[in-house]
Amino acid sequence: MRILGIDPGLRTTGFGVIDVDGHALRYVASGTISTMKAEGGNLPARLKVLFDGINEVKERYAPDVASVEIVFVNVNPQATLLLGQARGACVTALVSCQLVVAEYTALQMKQAVAGSGRAAKADVQEMVKRLLKLPALPGKDAADALGLAITHAHVGQSMARIAQATQLTRRTSGMYRAGRTY
Amino acid sequence: MRILGIDPGLRTTGFGVIDVDGHALRYVASGTISTMKAEGGNLPARLKVLFDGINEVKERYAPDVASVEIVFVNVNPQATLLLGQARGACVTALVSCQLVVAEYTALQMKQAVAGSGRAAKADVQEMVKRLLKLPALPGKDAADALGLAITHAHVGQSMARIAQATQLTRRTSGMYRAGRTY
Repeated sequence: MRILGIDPGLRTTGFGVIDVDGHALRYVASGTISTMKAEGGNLPARLKVLFDGINEVKERYAPDVASVEIVFVNVNPQATLLLGQARGACVTALVSCQLVVAEYTALQMKQAVAGSGRAAKADVQEMVKRLLKLPALPGKDAADALGLAITHAHVGQSMARIAQATQLTRRTSGMYRAGRTY
Repeated sequence: MRILGIDPGLRTTGFGVIDVDGHALRYVASGTISTMKAEGGNLPARLKVLFDGINEVKERYAPDVASVEIVFVNVNPQATLLLGQARGACVTALVSCQLVVAEYTALQMKQAVAGSGRAAKADVQEMVKRLLKLPALPGKDAADALGLAITHAHVGQSMARIAQATQLTRRTSGMYRAGRTY
């Protein structure tokens, strides 16, 4: 099974692709999609860069499933609105071609990858490097995206359903409670 | 020129299509895209319904330009995040096929359609009915979408640029100030 992890952001969206064969994980690719040089620099143009970039990744690596970070409310409401729109563009790119999208919080990703929901960015980078036997540390956005792919590999599809129905209800702050409160 | 107005929402997204010939406005179509019956009911499924719905409208009516409401921060941050993602899916559907997207606040739309930024929903419905010579009041979401299309028709492309550079800076609350602050 090939998993595409996505760490959505308006400026920079990270992506990471891994192959899973039983318990074995294999690194395939990772990188970032930057909207800083979007033509005109306006929001629609930047959302288009995200949409096109994710489509390009999808076409190149043909993943079987996507694993996307559940974003949270920022202290700055405007930033929340922009992040929401960026995530909307990313998820839309994934579902527009029938790709199944699994969703995990940053907390779940850190627990799955580094063993603690309080792990620092650097810990995630280090553990992703070890788990995928990379020659060097991945960048932060790419590491988070690879971490999301690893999380989905660890949790598995059936476990993901259990997690959605139980853990999320307790641990997250409302929005994604058991996936029923949209 | 054919203009497609979009009033984005996660539950219901309104759309309205008008033709503009000089000062003459002609109603073409309007309606809503509802995500309430999205398969599975999760957020990715609902964003896909919005994306597919807008693509269908685009293909059926072949607009030359789109006019989308600039959404604002809600008192409920979770709702803001969801609305952001819905708008992201809508805008992505529009720009994915090279459609130019103009953006107006609800205030600008109400001023253009009803003469006052404080106009009530019912006033907008009534004025849209009059301006487009409709036989009956349009629904609220469709009326807002038609209002956004009318706004773009009134303002025109060059005026839109001036408006972005001056009015928005004064009137809106940060996010879209002169279109430069993303």
